[in-house]
Amino acid sequence: MSPGGGFGDAVLRREDPRLLTGRGRFLDDLGHDALAAAFVRSPHAHARVVDIDVAGALDVAGLVAIYTWEDLPGRVGEPLPLLIPHPALTHGRTAHPLARDVVRHVGEPVVMVVARDRYLAEDAAGLIRVEYETLPAVVGLENAERAADLVHEDVPGNVGAVLHQETGDVDAAIGAAPHVLEFRLDIERSASMPLEGRGVYARWDADDESLRVYTSTQASTSVRAAVAAKLGLAPAKVEVIAPDVGGGFGVKIVHPWPEEILVPWAARLLGREVKWTEDRREHFVAAAHERAQIQRVRVGFDDAGRLLGMDVRILHDHGAYTPYGIIIPIITSTQLLGPYKPGAYRAEVRSLYTNTLIVTPYRGAGRPQGVFCMERTMDRIADHLGLDRARVREANLIQPDEFPYDQGLTFQDGRPLIYDSGDYPELLRKVKDLIGWEGFEAERAAAAAEGRRIGVGLGCYVEGTGVGPYEGGHVEIDSSGRVHVSTGLTSQGQSHQTVFAQIAAAELGVPIEDVRVTTGDTRRFGYAVGTFASRAAVMSGNAIALACRKVRDKALRIAGEALEADPGDLEITDGVVHVRGDRSAAVPLRTVAVLSNPLRYAFDEEAARATQFAVGGSQDEPPVPRGEEPGLEGRDYYSPPRSTFAAGAHAAIVEVDPETAEVRILRYAVVHDCGRLINPMVVEGQIHGGVAQGIGGALYERMAYDESGQLLNASFMDFLMPYATEIPRIETDHLETPSPLNPLGIKGAGEAGVIPVSAVIASAVEDAEGLRIDAMPLAPDELYDLRLRALDDPALRTRRASRAAARG
Amino acid sequence: MSPGGGFGDAVLRREDPRLLTGRGRFLDDLGHDALAAAFVRSPHAHARVVDIDVAGALDVAGLVAIYTWEDLPGRVGEPLPLLIPHPALTHGRTAHPLARDVVRHVGEPVVMVVARDRYLAEDAAGLIRVEYETLPAVVGLENAERAADLVHEDVPGNVGAVLHQETGDVDAAIGAAPHVLEFRLDIERSASMPLEGRGVYARWDADDESLRVYTSTQASTSVRAAVAAKLGLAPAKVEVIAPDVGGGFGVKIVHPWPEEILVPWAARLLGREVKWTEDRREHFVAAAHERAQIQRVRVGFDDAGRLLGMDVRILHDHGAYTPYGIIIPIITSTQLLGPYKPGAYRAEVRSLYTNTLIVTPYRGAGRPQGVFCMERTMDRIADHLGLDRARVREANLIQPDEFPYDQGLTFQDGRPLIYDSGDYPELLRKVKDLIGWEGFEAERAAAAAEGRRIGVGLGCYVEGTGVGPYEGGHVEIDSSGRVHVSTGLTSQGQSHQTVFAQIAAAELGVPIEDVRVTTGDTRRFGYAVGTFASRAAVMSGNAIALACRKVRDKALRIAGEALEADPGDLEITDGVVHVRGDRSAAVPLRTVAVLSNPLRYAFDEEAARATQFAVGGSQDEPPVPRGEEPGLEGRDYYSPPRSTFAAGAHAAIVEVDPETAEVRILRYAVVHDCGRLINPMVVEGQIHGGVAQGIGGALYERMAYDESGQLLNASFMDFLMPYATEIPRIETDHLETPSPLNPLGIKGAGEAGVIPVSAVIASAVEDAEGLRIDAMPLAPDELYDLRLRALDDPALRTRRASRAAARG
Repeated sequence: MSPGGGFGDAVLRREDPRLLTGRGRFLDDLGHDALAAAFVRSPHAHARVVDIDVAGALDVAGLVAIYTWEDLPGRVGEPLPLLIPHPALTHGRTAHPLARDVVRHVGEPVVMVVARDRYLAEDAAGLIRVEYETLPAVVGLENAERAADLVHEDVPGNVGAVLHQETGDVDAAIGAAPHVLEFRLDIERSASMPLEGRGVYARWDADDESLRVYTSTQASTSVRAAVAAKLGLAPAKVEVIAPDVGGGFGVKIVHPWPEEILVPWAARLLGREVKWTEDRREHFVAAAHERAQIQRVRVGFDDAGRLLGMDVRILHDHGAYTPYGIIIPIITSTQLLGPYKPGAYRAEVRSLYTNTLIVTPYRGAGRPQGVFCMERTMDRIADHLGLDRARVREANLIQPDEFPYDQGLTFQDGRPLIYDSGDYPELLRKVKDLIGWEGFEAERAAAAAEGRRIGVGLGCYVEGTGVGPYEGGHVEIDSSGRVHVSTGLTSQGQSHQTVFAQIAAAELGVPIEDVRVTTGDTRRFGYAVGTFASRAAVMSGNAIALACRKVRDKALRIAGEALEADPGDLEITDGVVHVRGDRSAAVPLRTVAVLSNPLRYAFDEEAARATQFAVGGSQDEPPVPRGEEPGLEGRDYYSPPRSTFAAGAHAAIVEVDPETAEVRILRYAVVHDCGRLINPMVVEGQIHGGVAQGIGGALYERMAYDESGQLLNASFMDFLMPYATEIPRIETDHLETPSPLNPLGIKGAGEAGVIPVSAVIASAVEDAEGLRIDAMPLAPDELYDLRLRALDDPALRTRRASRAAARG
Repeated sequence: MSPGGGFGDAVLRREDPRLLTGRGRFLDDLGHDALAAAFVRSPHAHARVVDIDVAGALDVAGLVAIYTWEDLPGRVGEPLPLLIPHPALTHGRTAHPLARDVVRHVGEPVVMVVARDRYLAEDAAGLIRVEYETLPAVVGLENAERAADLVHEDVPGNVGAVLHQETGDVDAAIGAAPHVLEFRLDIERSASMPLEGRGVYARWDADDESLRVYTSTQASTSVRAAVAAKLGLAPAKVEVIAPDVGGGFGVKIVHPWPEEILVPWAARLLGREVKWTEDRREHFVAAAHERAQIQRVRVGFDDAGRLLGMDVRILHDHGAYTPYGIIIPIITSTQLLGPYKPGAYRAEVRSLYTNTLIVTPYRGAGRPQGVFCMERTMDRIADHLGLDRARVREANLIQPDEFPYDQGLTFQDGRPLIYDSGDYPELLRKVKDLIGWEGFEAERAAAAAEGRRIGVGLGCYVEGTGVGPYEGGHVEIDSSGRVHVSTGLTSQGQSHQTVFAQIAAAELGVPIEDVRVTTGDTRRFGYAVGTFASRAAVMSGNAIALACRKVRDKALRIAGEALEADPGDLEITDGVVHVRGDRSAAVPLRTVAVLSNPLRYAFDEEAARATQFAVGGSQDEPPVPRGEEPGLEGRDYYSPPRSTFAAGAHAAIVEVDPETAEVRILRYAVVHDCGRLINPMVVEGQIHGGVAQGIGGALYERMAYDESGQLLNASFMDFLMPYATEIPRIETDHLETPSPLNPLGIKGAGEAGVIPVSAVIASAVEDAEGLRIDAMPLAPDELYDLRLRALDDPALRTRRASRAAARG
């Protein structure tokens, strides 16, 4: 790796001029002449489909087709795949793409309508009469656990999975501990809620017998595999392209969505272009949610607050189906440990079905819940022992000389949970400095003097990033000198046009302006996993770097022949290969590109004119020697033995209105370590966005299901997301502990921002109020209720009084 | 190479069920909704364009656009590329895509019209008035040589190129020879004349900013390079696909045709699909011709007929432009030598411009003319010395122990003309046996007794095939077990679906039914040269074999892990990898394909079910180890140091009508050596078609230009092509001298049939008539004229009498 060319610099986002001037091409910007699909969706959380009467819709002018489950042939009608099987998921269940007999959540698709435009399709959908026999709805984890009713009649107790993670003898450790605490925590549902919902647009090319599918996805190669398998097409005959994607945050990693199968299937059947664009209400009830858990903690610790044993029992709400397996509970139960040594540890997660929307990863993917659990535990311990909250954390941190550190558990990738590198004490020290931890009591006193109630909180986390199994990169330099970089994974705002170009520019010695990056287009790169788990930079970034090295080696080899120089004596500067320290003997990469293909009539006269050199080779040597290939291009893959672990510490100062119980975040500080920084501005952007989403989860967002399974706030009028006005300036600092696992020494940064926010805000509000915060999000009315209840709680009353006294 | 699975067998053509039942998809079967293009073409052979008045066309309903040269921006309007530069081509010239100021042949495009359909486009084209100032037309080689007028005012003497090939001291050798003959030979123009003419259909995809071009071409990758360069697009944004192509025979190797630039350019500009399909008259005047040469021979030889020195001066008619360089004269002047040792040899080719259609390679590509020259020479020597014609040839043949044999010249690929292997005496012996050479005088006598006039002729040739620089092959086995083979070169009837599948089936150990072959689609394979020069089987066949070996090795490696066996102990039979001699330990290739991608959710449940094996690998080993790639696929290239040389001998018995001078071919015998046979039936089909085209060139086909450059027979009413009724049953035998140059030991067979036919028919007619045949084709009226002239030629009268006496 030879840095330079902008690696590590805060290069401005190259995608912004296009996106900010409205030239982005999102799913609904495509296919204006396509037929439109609309769906009749279940209005019931749990019901049997008795009859479907389409007669009323048949007269709608412009109606093209109506499909029910009965119309779906062969594999198209089979249940959707269970993507990531796991031995603990003993009762995995997935839906049919259109309901076959029973619907299990409001929003489940029942009938597909295709018409000339969306208006007509919706009109026709509205005229279809579906007769249901309603069944009892199971809503909420406690109801699900009670199992008076069943979501799937063949899943006893509504238990889809029971997952154990254990290290050491927990019962013995807690039994022998000088202090033991037990408590319960509640985390509500939220959702990825990207500004652009899902959408699919498919064209069948009868000439070519091939299908092109544009879909707003985080995993175009996987959608291709699914569509090909379902439709019985060779993968080579299915092109899947993720155009500009207006946010993913996890919900678009699920694949195939029913619509991703049905729309291409209909396009092929009808021989017409068909498009479906999700509307917001559909996104609320027919995409996916995350987060909801109930955690029951029992923890034993010593006088210094050091963890001796921790036993966590988690109820995880999986919604109606488990297409994405149990990744979230696996992550919660492992990443809960954060930067700490837990002593003995046991987690048992029971993943329960409910008659609500499916639960699949949302930015953070189980980590916010785990960190909430651990950091709430730390605060409880500090409170119990009367210790400084930061001090308790410091007592439990893994030390810099302990890496690689094996937590003794099994991570989401099926590999051991081994942290590769980090410096957690330094992270904590920096965030304390940044927020002014040590001087906070003076600040609090000054505020109190003005009648203001403020508090400070902090939280730490470790995030496994760059999960495998692999990504690939392809790099080609054409005869104009342009560098085309492609990788299979997709982009949803991660600045891949910038950071992958920075990597390629640095590796190849070319100006970043010459680099073009293509992602998520199976025509360009056919093997990929996808963009999730903070893995894009680590996986594709390293694959692109490795591919660039192949291309660089080839360029030096060819230029060496042209210049009659040893390739080892050459370097590349500003797109020109030259003898090190001697720019007079030089050949531009665009010329090397022409020379690389023994088919010389390159149609590029400028390049041809520049080609003053003849590639050598005797008359007995073939123009393409064995092992060589024509073209100045290279492909390589990066596949790590295990994940790399980023980490960070956040701290916040909040002010709580003594009257209205409204929480305002005064300051928010982040210290983040994702190894070597490719572009600090991009990393900070990721962190800022993540913190904003975390604040949403901490204070505003919840899915308000009533007991019959109706989502009461399924619109942006009713579902609260933070505006810019709710987000403070985020103060950010970095630490760089390079990962030893990959060539670039980088770690992922996509999800970090969101992970500890609920824990930090809870800690700060608790600090401000002297109350116990056990559930998030925390709305003003809930905080107000807590205050009222505290008045009736002698223990809390005593605690608040003693804290007030201690602070003078 | 492990033969089997049909390699070497006469497998039925797998493309035939589709093509013979009308399910072929040729260019004009595509794009029914596309706009249509039509061209206003020059009615003059040489003229200055003074004015173009489009006013009359503007009212045509459905007219979309009219373009003249003035409308073409930047590189689109520049002259077409000169594809294969050569130092001897000192005055190469190419046309603008639309005439800029001067038109130089009838049919040159001047204006492009785009309209709703072809009828309207033609209507509008007919209403456009182009004012010309006519210039003197140069038609015919002798006029061109006289150079009273110039085709290009800056090309003195109309001489585009003067090419020398020389070995030994020719003047000394001929000066010292006991016998010297001098004579002149004339070969007329013909043309490839595929049943499907040219055609281009382009779509601009604004969503994707990419262009898809379907074109009836022999070189889709080169069209892509040209379109990309001309339109300023990255090659990755241009997809070029050759659909089913209804014959090429050389004319479709030229690229880019003006229409191949203009149609995609217009499609992009208009944002609409645009198609142009060549009509037959356009093909006669706006595509390309070949063949026309005047050869002046001086030859010295000894009493046994052995060549001592040969001096050939050739005038080659290049038509108005030289887009394809001087490949034809290079081939004529080198391949003229055939299987013979010429003693000292000199060829000087003067390539002249005329105001006629361009001349580019047509099946045989200069070889038929060269072989005509050499074989006519052999017959002259035999006649002069009174020796048996076969005996003279035998005296000059290269012997089997003389390989590799260096002719001391430079071949078309710029490499030395070295024959790799062969057994020419055996070829000649076999064809004499086949035709009954030794017993022919009895046959002749028997015919004469019935008043019938018959004659026998023979001819030998050597054909450099499999010219480089390279081709590539890609092979992928998917999780259904299907094998997808792709190569960049195109197919125009060469049975690639059959022979490439035979190669893959044999190399991989799979049933041929599981193999699908894709050619000429840049989406599938982006690097290629093209299908010409009898190179497809040699180049792509070997590349595919090498790619298969990579895939096979990978399959054995993965199956070895699954079966816990040494890959060296495994073999593949019927698509199943198993321990050699033990079918109980086995894993099907479809399962190996699933195992090859560490992203396991393959969406193919059948394959998943079949996957009973876990690929090993410790927890410290990445899922994709360094140097490995996901997927059961492989790519490789074949690039030879030089061409391989096929050879053959033909013989024919003809009957000439004593009254009408009509020639009927009674028998036609071919002995052919193209090394190892992949599929004898396919090779014989190639030979049969070639002989039929050769018979056309020998007896029927010519381009009847008048002195003003008008082509008088530009239709199938007037241009004579042989019907099946004119083609005798062709008796074929093979010899197999494997090429030592490539892994499969094969040589090309595509052009062989056509090469010696004119020479063989001339020899036979001469033998029947006792006349001197110096020009081809030979129409009955011409033969009749020769008979009349012979009556006035005392030498010929004497010769005919003495031959009649000798035969008793």
